[in-house]
Amino acid sequence: MDASDYITTHAEQFKEQLKDLLRIPSVSTLPAHKADVQRAADWLVEDMRRIGFRTAEAIPTAGHPIVYGEWMGAGAGAPTLLVYGHYDVQPAEMADGWLTEPFQPVERDGRIYARGAIDSKSNVMAQLKAAEAMLATGGAPVNLKLLFEGEEESNSENLSAFVAANRERLKADVVVICDGSMADREQPDMYYGLRGVVSMELEVFGPKQDLHSGHFGGTVHNPIQALAEIITRLHHPDGSVSVPGFYDDVEPLSDEERAELAKALPWIESEWRDVAAAPAQWGEPAYNLHERIGARPTLEINGIAGGFAAEGFKTVLPGRALAKISCRLVPHQTSHKIYERVRAYVMQIAPPTVRVEMRLVSIGEPLLIDRHSASVQAALRAYETVWGKRPNFTRAGGSIPVAVDLQRELGAPLVLLAFGYKGCGAHGPNEHVYLDMWYRGMATMIAFCREIAG
Amino acid sequence: MDASDYITTHAEQFKEQLKDLLRIPSVSTLPAHKADVQRAADWLVEDMRRIGFRTAEAIPTAGHPIVYGEWMGAGAGAPTLLVYGHYDVQPAEMADGWLTEPFQPVERDGRIYARGAIDSKSNVMAQLKAAEAMLATGGAPVNLKLLFEGEEESNSENLSAFVAANRERLKADVVVICDGSMADREQPDMYYGLRGVVSMELEVFGPKQDLHSGHFGGTVHNPIQALAEIITRLHHPDGSVSVPGFYDDVEPLSDEERAELAKALPWIESEWRDVAAAPAQWGEPAYNLHERIGARPTLEINGIAGGFAAEGFKTVLPGRALAKISCRLVPHQTSHKIYERVRAYVMQIAPPTVRVEMRLVSIGEPLLIDRHSASVQAALRAYETVWGKRPNFTRAGGSIPVAVDLQRELGAPLVLLAFGYKGCGAHGPNEHVYLDMWYRGMATMIAFCREIAG
Repeated sequence: MDASDYITTHAEQFKEQLKDLLRIPSVSTLPAHKADVQRAADWLVEDMRRIGFRTAEAIPTAGHPIVYGEWMGAGAGAPTLLVYGHYDVQPAEMADGWLTEPFQPVERDGRIYARGAIDSKSNVMAQLKAAEAMLATGGAPVNLKLLFEGEEESNSENLSAFVAANRERLKADVVVICDGSMADREQPDMYYGLRGVVSMELEVFGPKQDLHSGHFGGTVHNPIQALAEIITRLHHPDGSVSVPGFYDDVEPLSDEERAELAKALPWIESEWRDVAAAPAQWGEPAYNLHERIGARPTLEINGIAGGFAAEGFKTVLPGRALAKISCRLVPHQTSHKIYERVRAYVMQIAPPTVRVEMRLVSIGEPLLIDRHSASVQAALRAYETVWGKRPNFTRAGGSIPVAVDLQRELGAPLVLLAFGYKGCGAHGPNEHVYLDMWYRGMATMIAFCREIAG
Repeated sequence: MDASDYITTHAEQFKEQLKDLLRIPSVSTLPAHKADVQRAADWLVEDMRRIGFRTAEAIPTAGHPIVYGEWMGAGAGAPTLLVYGHYDVQPAEMADGWLTEPFQPVERDGRIYARGAIDSKSNVMAQLKAAEAMLATGGAPVNLKLLFEGEEESNSENLSAFVAANRERLKADVVVICDGSMADREQPDMYYGLRGVVSMELEVFGPKQDLHSGHFGGTVHNPIQALAEIITRLHHPDGSVSVPGFYDDVEPLSDEERAELAKALPWIESEWRDVAAAPAQWGEPAYNLHERIGARPTLEINGIAGGFAAEGFKTVLPGRALAKISCRLVPHQTSHKIYERVRAYVMQIAPPTVRVEMRLVSIGEPLLIDRHSASVQAALRAYETVWGKRPNFTRAGGSIPVAVDLQRELGAPLVLLAFGYKGCGAHGPNEHVYLDMWYRGMATMIAFCREIAG
């Protein structure tokens, strides 16, 4: 019996184990669930030990524990994989619109419904059960280091420091980030790009206090209006960002990459129509929707406030107005440089009738994985073996800060593996996972290990 | 003894009576003070009867009572004055920064400190005591109708209907609005213009829901940005309003009127430096500060909201954004016409990438009193007699809706009389009135009655 057969013969048992883990409400953002997060960590450690991991522990942090296990049975001559996943989940309550209790997993129509089903306990369990299948059938062809975080949903507060402090221990030939999902149940995606994000505040000060708009209207540059004028000048009419130097460090798209990105475009467009559904598309006309989302940087106004905007009406001429702004970054832009350019430009265009302050809030660098690297090519072949289709290369618009941290600290080639479907309600009610995709995920991981071992 | 001597001999007694009225916390906006407002109304009715008013009553409304009294002793051949004032006050608490209890009047440095001292019980009492002085010394040269409102601080909800239903009863040759204040303690102002105000909401809708700015940023016209673009296009760079037709109905300023307005300019500029104190003045370059505030219409953004603007940061791409907008109007602009022009222009410039809604919130028409009218000229002479200085003609930027109502319903010439000083803290802590100005106010009213009687 090989590892793939083992999955088939143990499918029911694996499913019951997944349900066991889903029953533990490991909500990392709610202090009341602290013991549950620990319980989930202990559950994983116990399962790691049971299936043959010599090293398996729940490592305490200032927040929730990091679960770490090693199986080095492939020997020093074999490659080593470090696999990242997370076992904590978002809060969930029946009142949010669940049809069944979020922490009482229910099987229906080939899916398991529960909080964490897609994000991300099915991924953690796919890794663990793939390892079990390999270890129970002669051993894995690679050494395995499994790193499961308990704080992904609460800003990964302690992971970055842990990785930096354990570089030797976590050392690997390939780092696998197992999270996220694909746009089609039958057509896998191969994510190779994630945008960075730098966030900032822009505050405009006018009169020294809120004024009566009758007594002073027409003599003071209204801070809301001044802010609107500044915001308007941050983009050209065609949707491109007008901050000087904003695009200087953006790596241009090659024709080859554009051809790859075009393959996933129909799914991106379909999702846009379903979820965004704005009156019209918008953005840089020279780039298609997939390129705008994944391969082009943006400047977005995430919030604005000034004066009186609640129910009712006050004829105030406000003393200040605030905007929250973030830029999504692509290689080789860097957070600090982009912030400085936005800040300098805002200061330059700020009218002399107001005073302007800019504040940096947070940074996060972009990530781009070489599509032609051996590990990405191995992943492509592994997907094709199991799903019968070559994955579409995809660049995501969001950010996975831990991926950037792992790349920076460990210096090993990175691969992003996703086994679930986008429409499974991550963070929402009635979150679920398709069981067939879950089993395929295990098989894909086994195939990937074989490909890496060569 | 003439009426002016009566004031002098009764100065102490009048002051104690003012304190008695100030002790009644007639806060019209707080239901808990409903009985106090009634008590203040009854106090006024009683005083009216005591000084010789045949008719004096507290007329119930759906809200707080209207105090109305008539003295028609001058006879059918004499002119009749209708005098408007209000006896309700704003809330006040020690915690707001009062040095002494707001409803326990204290005399200090020639002033009385108490809530309502300047806004507007001293005005009501100046009218009542001027009437007392005239009636006690041979009678007034004019017939007097005193109309004291108890809801001025809570939107005058019932006054307009009362006036419309009592046109015959309130009929007068001159209507006096006694409220407001002057910019200098020694230099009276003669207000002859008030701006109207029309308020509206502008809401911009983009994607059908809030989006993740990573997943969709760069493909959707951010509603905050679209709103900023619309707001930016509502003004020309020089500060003038760019809505087509906005200035069409504005009565141009004559050289003579501009010369009059220039006289009060130093006080307007001084107040701007003290209260507004923005980094620089702003507004239509062809008009000075007094003209911009009182004689020119404006379009002001009173509030803006969209996305996440609280403490912290959320990288949301919001589904909508809202602005509250109001226009201050001058003759002969009208609320509905200006709203329609703003609405039509916003709809015209709204980009096709978003959906825009406009909503009318409230209207109020502007007021301009003929400076050359007999009643205004009479008021000028009355001020000059008492203060030794001819008042500066002043146009105010704010609005007194009741003035417009009275003008429309009664059709009589209007005069705005103010006896207090602007720096007396209306609506704020440590509100006060200068006693010398208060006595001069009574004398001015007596002189005005004589001037009107001819």
